[in-house]
Amino acid sequence: MSAYSLLCTLANEIALLESTAATLGWDQETYMPPKALEHRAQQMGYLGGKGHALFTLRKFRLLLDKAEGEELQPVQAANVREWRRLNNRSIRLSKRLVEEFSIASSRAKAAWVEARKNSDFAQFAPHLDKLVQLTRKKAEKWSYTTEPYDALLDEFEPGAQAVQISTLFDSLRPQLSALAKEAVVRSAGVPAHALEGDYPVHLQQQLNREVAESIGFDFEGGRIDTTTHPFCTKLGPHDQRLTTRYDPKDFTSSLFGILHEAGHGLYEQGLPPADYGLPSGTFVSLGIHESQSRLWENHVGRSRPFWERWLPRAKEIFPALTLSLEDFLRALHRAEFSFIRVEADEATYDLHILLRFLLERRMLNRELKIKDLPQAWNEQFEDLFGLTPPDNARGCLQDIHWSMGALGYFPTYTLGNLNAAQLYHAAQQVPAIAEACAAAEYVPLLGWLRHHIHSKGATLTSGELITAATGSPTDASWHLAHLRSRFLG
Amino acid sequence: MSAYSLLCTLANEIALLESTAATLGWDQETYMPPKALEHRAQQMGYLGGKGHALFTLRKFRLLLDKAEGEELQPVQAANVREWRRLNNRSIRLSKRLVEEFSIASSRAKAAWVEARKNSDFAQFAPHLDKLVQLTRKKAEKWSYTTEPYDALLDEFEPGAQAVQISTLFDSLRPQLSALAKEAVVRSAGVPAHALEGDYPVHLQQQLNREVAESIGFDFEGGRIDTTTHPFCTKLGPHDQRLTTRYDPKDFTSSLFGILHEAGHGLYEQGLPPADYGLPSGTFVSLGIHESQSRLWENHVGRSRPFWERWLPRAKEIFPALTLSLEDFLRALHRAEFSFIRVEADEATYDLHILLRFLLERRMLNRELKIKDLPQAWNEQFEDLFGLTPPDNARGCLQDIHWSMGALGYFPTYTLGNLNAAQLYHAAQQVPAIAEACAAAEYVPLLGWLRHHIHSKGATLTSGELITAATGSPTDASWHLAHLRSRFLG
Repeated sequence: MSAYSLLCTLANEIALLESTAATLGWDQETYMPPKALEHRAQQMGYLGGKGHALFTLRKFRLLLDKAEGEELQPVQAANVREWRRLNNRSIRLSKRLVEEFSIASSRAKAAWVEARKNSDFAQFAPHLDKLVQLTRKKAEKWSYTTEPYDALLDEFEPGAQAVQISTLFDSLRPQLSALAKEAVVRSAGVPAHALEGDYPVHLQQQLNREVAESIGFDFEGGRIDTTTHPFCTKLGPHDQRLTTRYDPKDFTSSLFGILHEAGHGLYEQGLPPADYGLPSGTFVSLGIHESQSRLWENHVGRSRPFWERWLPRAKEIFPALTLSLEDFLRALHRAEFSFIRVEADEATYDLHILLRFLLERRMLNRELKIKDLPQAWNEQFEDLFGLTPPDNARGCLQDIHWSMGALGYFPTYTLGNLNAAQLYHAAQQVPAIAEACAAAEYVPLLGWLRHHIHSKGATLTSGELITAATGSPTDASWHLAHLRSRFLG
Repeated sequence: MSAYSLLCTLANEIALLESTAATLGWDQETYMPPKALEHRAQQMGYLGGKGHALFTLRKFRLLLDKAEGEELQPVQAANVREWRRLNNRSIRLSKRLVEEFSIASSRAKAAWVEARKNSDFAQFAPHLDKLVQLTRKKAEKWSYTTEPYDALLDEFEPGAQAVQISTLFDSLRPQLSALAKEAVVRSAGVPAHALEGDYPVHLQQQLNREVAESIGFDFEGGRIDTTTHPFCTKLGPHDQRLTTRYDPKDFTSSLFGILHEAGHGLYEQGLPPADYGLPSGTFVSLGIHESQSRLWENHVGRSRPFWERWLPRAKEIFPALTLSLEDFLRALHRAEFSFIRVEADEATYDLHILLRFLLERRMLNRELKIKDLPQAWNEQFEDLFGLTPPDNARGCLQDIHWSMGALGYFPTYTLGNLNAAQLYHAAQQVPAIAEACAAAEYVPLLGWLRHHIHSKGATLTSGELITAATGSPTDASWHLAHLRSRFLG
């Protein structure tokens, strides 16, 4: 047997362990009773340890050395390259550092929940301080050329660099700010609660399912369940779980949640199942993953043709829904400066990301002391949004990411927005796709994404992938054009 | 560290693997989308193999040898005894035989589903033949003194023997037959569908939950979900999952299902959580497990005091329910000779078990050829019930057990009935328990079961357990007395 085949066997075993842990994780967030938590944590720790141990085996590295000398097909060579990259990252962290980080972040998460509830940054500060220190230590171990942030970005968006993200945001900022201000002004006449009504959960579930099916989500290999913090997770090559939460007063909340998660799910359902567990059967980066969710949520789901088809159906399902198409779209495209990222509209969303990127980069570079974070947040917020958060719960304590030690994650949201706009624009250049989208038929669009993005797995870098699909690397102009047309058009 | 402690560590790891497999199994029967089946089977095989490998390690046996020489507390000594017994059984089967059996039974199960659908025994016969041969081979490996059936019984009801079960059924048969006949005659005036009405599933769920809570099931450490073939499974020391199915025309179907499964669940919730994964934290036998489910389902759930409390509540929940208490109880206690075991009433149930015991014992002893099973079934059925099954689907193809190779399992259902009656009778001798039960308050009864049964785990044999709790070994007289009082009283 070739070293490559033996690596595939090991990767398959790791995938069995990881998909098992994913199943336990899904249950934990959807159905698990509260007293089960401690045993579940033990199971997760056990499975995680087993998977990590297999991946960092000396045998794995020796096989990689041998496989690099074997004659391989291009996809096989890509898999070996990706394994080498991931393995290099894994073996550089000592077991002790991994465990220390895991304990610190589980404590920090618990402290953050309390701190946010009380809007009391002091409760969270020592935990964040510890996590930033440990994160810096991880970055040192992984090594970087310019600054620690690069080593972190590499986990979520392989190859991305802080200076490049910084340049991107610098160029975006003035245009985004101007656009957001203008969009907010133009929304002044739209009532804030126009979408509110009485929308029973079981009827929302019916509409959500019809919509998810219509964009191509395969319910024979997936499902939707209810949770507090919605996510999408893959439990096997044909087992894609979406989750959402319901606001009985606003059906669009769960519907756009489902369009978003189904976007992630369609990417996963489109990865080659025969390559499950190999890099060629795995998503390439979070910035690409997020491009898929944003594309279906915003470019498809908030478009006029989509609602030309679905508003009449929604009205059949919900007797309470009486808005005209024009009023409905106006309500949907209402822009406003608000405090909470996850509730932000498209026009202002990326400013929230910019803020977080600026601050976490400064914390990592020791330019911002943890204790000064609330003040720095509020000043920066005032500068970007013209508002000051009334408390830290609606300020620097609002997101879970830092409490999990996930610094370097936020920029992938904006990369997702840029890639979504660029991909959607490229697909629209195919007349059959543009025509179908205009009639709210999405089979051709999904086919295009399957071909250009989903089927490639991680055999190309995200940059190569976007260039191959659209003709040029990620570029903010399409996203800005989209926002302009939606909010100022 | 003592050998005993090291055994506990290994047992803990096995429990992590087994509870993980149980979680995957629960998901498979409740929520998993259909296309996920193949990957799930791979995960289950992988986890099963890992657990079995740990348990049959040479190291495990060497530690057992050492632990047997250590100074141990009585509970620790009981654990070592039980590990030795289980280990002896495990190591006697070759990996090849285990795999061969697993493949044959998964094929047999698929063939059985089709055969039952078509009521075509010929489709199933070769698979059953193969499984009986392999089961006989397993029994030979496990070894036995009198007949192969003993070795099989030992898996489900350690220490039980075919000749003893046979004597028990021989003594039960004439009394049961006479009692069943008389009960059926007396039910002649009770309409067959008196319980039918319109009972929306979400309202059934509400009543079921209230009832399960009232008998002491802890929903902070458990839950109820929907499935096709109801079961109860433990995913961790504080994670007990019950499942049921709903008949929108008859709320008693899911309610008695939940009382039954909650009976199993209460046993599991009452095992000492600190001993989770050790024999002292594990149920002792299926005959004891079933005694708990039958006690709550039949002795509590079908009693007059229970419905004096719950019928008024059920009427609040279900506008369609208008029966008087007397008519309701008459409908509940209606006896009838019918073809399907799982739908049988208490008066006729054990005759179904007797039939299966007689036939599977003869198949194993080569006294009955597989091809002659349908005829033997029908003759025996005619003899016991005075009816001939109209087809094999309602005859020898009705149960899943044989298709899984679970020969020797059926008698535990009747042992459960006998133990339930004996335990319930013993508990009623405590005046405070009898008074509470008469008022449909079950905290004292549960306390008695916790003390005498649940808290003991597998530190006593089932025989020792019943004797310690009731003063004598399992005896059919209490069950017969219960049936007489219920059906002929």
